Amino acid sequence: MTDAETVMARCDQLATCSDEPDRLTRPFASGAMHQAHELVGGWMQEAGLEVRRDNVGNLRGRVGPAEGPTLLMGSHLDSVRGAGKYDGPLGVLIAIAAAHRVRVPYALEVLVFADEEGLRYGTTYLGSRAVAGTFDSAVLKHVDRAGIAMADAISAFGGDPSAIGQDAWRGAPLLGYFEPHIEQGPVLEARRLPVAVVSAIAGQNRYALNFKGEAGHAGTVPMNGRRDALAAAAEFVLAAEAEARATAGLVATVGQLDVRPGAANVIPDDVDLSLDIRHAEDGVRLQSCGRLLEHAQDIAVERNVTVRVLPMTEHAAVRCSPRLTESLAAAVAQSGHEAISLTSGAGHDGVVMASLTEIAMLFVRCKGGVSHSPFESVAVEDVAVAIDVSSRFLELLAQR
Amino acid sequence: MTDAETVMARCDQLATCSDEPDRLTRPFASGAMHQAHELVGGWMQEAGLEVRRDNVGNLRGRVGPAEGPTLLMGSHLDSVRGAGKYDGPLGVLIAIAAAHRVRVPYALEVLVFADEEGLRYGTTYLGSRAVAGTFDSAVLKHVDRAGIAMADAISAFGGDPSAIGQDAWRGAPLLGYFEPHIEQGPVLEARRLPVAVVSAIAGQNRYALNFKGEAGHAGTVPMNGRRDALAAAAEFVLAAEAEARATAGLVATVGQLDVRPGAANVIPDDVDLSLDIRHAEDGVRLQSCGRLLEHAQDIAVERNVTVRVLPMTEHAAVRCSPRLTESLAAAVAQSGHEAISLTSGAGHDGVVMASLTEIAMLFVRCKGGVSHSPFESVAVEDVAVAIDVSSRFLELLAQR
Repeated sequence: MTDAETVMARCDQLATCSDEPDRLTRPFASGAMHQAHELVGGWMQEAGLEVRRDNVGNLRGRVGPAEGPTLLMGSHLDSVRGAGKYDGPLGVLIAIAAAHRVRVPYALEVLVFADEEGLRYGTTYLGSRAVAGTFDSAVLKHVDRAGIAMADAISAFGGDPSAIGQDAWRGAPLLGYFEPHIEQGPVLEARRLPVAVVSAIAGQNRYALNFKGEAGHAGTVPMNGRRDALAAAAEFVLAAEAEARATAGLVATVGQLDVRPGAANVIPDDVDLSLDIRHAEDGVRLQSCGRLLEHAQDIAVERNVTVRVLPMTEHAAVRCSPRLTESLAAAVAQSGHEAISLTSGAGHDGVVMASLTEIAMLFVRCKGGVSHSPFESVAVEDVAVAIDVSSRFLELLAQR
Repeated sequence: MTDAETVMARCDQLATCSDEPDRLTRPFASGAMHQAHELVGGWMQEAGLEVRRDNVGNLRGRVGPAEGPTLLMGSHLDSVRGAGKYDGPLGVLIAIAAAHRVRVPYALEVLVFADEEGLRYGTTYLGSRAVAGTFDSAVLKHVDRAGIAMADAISAFGGDPSAIGQDAWRGAPLLGYFEPHIEQGPVLEARRLPVAVVSAIAGQNRYALNFKGEAGHAGTVPMNGRRDALAAAAEFVLAAEAEARATAGLVATVGQLDVRPGAANVIPDDVDLSLDIRHAEDGVRLQSCGRLLEHAQDIAVERNVTVRVLPMTEHAAVRCSPRLTESLAAAVAQSGHEAISLTSGAGHDGVVMASLTEIAMLFVRCKGGVSHSPFESVAVEDVAVAIDVSSRFLELLAQR
């Protein structure tokens, strides 16, 4: 069995560790996570790593000198509800395979993060925050749907919630953090390439907009007397699309749109919609946000409706390390493939780890760009390339 | 008390006849309708009309020669849920007031229709269909939310469901059908006029459209790879608005729009929407429908999504009688007001009555154009004008 075949088989095996019988759902500090730790811990030991679990519930496997420079690598083992087999686990297993394959003079520590998706407590990045030293202990009081406080869940899982501060990296100087992950997008497939080097994780703004007009009878109110909230919202949907099309690298999405009163014969007076904007450069993103929100005001004035804008979330972009990324691109080239660079539109643990050390990410092609779905699919040949590239990357770092 | 004050007081009194304690809801053949019949029947007798109830549940009041030409006039007494006080009752009470006021050589029959809104059985125009002879007895099997079949409701209300055919007009030659009604739109208020002559009741098409694209991650799918069903739908919403703005007298409305999956970070792949188009001329309406549905196809092709169009309803326009309308306009002028003509965008019993005889309608200004709402409001001065115009109209008909 090749390393890639082993990784694929392990992804299948991990997919059986689920809290739900008919689909893959593996929340933070769950029974399914416990099973998954048993498996992954065993594989790490087989690969020669020394394994421990920290308080928040990350699994950590270390190999190499006890002191001295360390490269962190890994991904997360928790999942969304009804997940695929590769978002998270693939990165963990590629990291283990590469750590097993290479002999490097620095230490390697594989991090298996406890919570990236935030399914159980609605708070993302619990595992990487603990390692980065940015874990906010206020969230320990959060309760899940069953009414279990996070502190109790952590205790039940074997950690000490009062000692999460000790999970923060305090050891040797860091060489960086490296994460392989499926692309979760369609670009590699379209470009017919197995992997890509991530240049940045996009910054993101999310807004809730509300347009309010005036309801009226669809048959009796002339067009020039209307204050149609849906027509205003439609104009905004197209404006967001046009702004993104006109701005290289920008994505803008209206994913939610609710119309009231919602009767075929009544002019809508009340529309709520969501706006999600992302770009690798904060300046570009913020300029586009500004233009679009101004445009929303113009639409409202023009149509004699009102618009209210509620900022929901804002995350700055995270640039990957030029130094690490250069080595990663060189590894892709050595492996015989064109080294394209991609922005990650989705968030990853690297966003948090960037506050601790420099980061690099390798994207692996996934079928149809599909993710967060049982239809997530990855080719064994691409996994082989990703293991090869990751191993070469570790070796190139040793040469610098 | 003036006639107009009496009509206003009676509208208030009828508003207490409701099947719901806190709002006005008066369905077909209901307890509330029974109460309302008691009141209206008494007022008709006071006005010198001979009163009877037919099988479907219309109240009918007749005055004048038993044989010979007859003018029908009236409106409906049923309501929507949470109705206002004037949509329907105002026309009934103006007709009674005018019948009381005038002495004309022909017979007058005031029709108080049993069901125009279709609240209880989802079938509109039950009362006028019975009079026009177009009642479809298949609907007698329809059941309401309480499981009561229409035939049983009619029996309980005192009618014979098997004898509804006898409700059809079989009497004397008809001079026409005349209905006063609130405008349910904002034009009279904007024009600062109390009444308008209706030139036609608009024809209407209603369609259900479905746009299907492809879902995807809002952060990872580049703009040029998207097949966003909501963006396609938004383009269609604006196209419908543009078509109506560019076509005199046309109204086009998207009142329902449902987006799936409906998450802020997922590109929508599935949007349902309603399209309602109305115009006084069938040719104009059908041309616009054709252009818009073709436009929907163009949008779908352009955006690589699919569109499915389901025709829901289609009603031809009904032209009001030029002969009657001319007299009505003369009556408005005699009353000292400018006689503007308006298309009715909403349907009325006149649509059905037009298959029996020529029709005319008088619109009365209502505040803010609001209807089907407790905020329906009519000024007593405008009601006075409407009674005056209706009476003059009856007298002018006698001169012809």
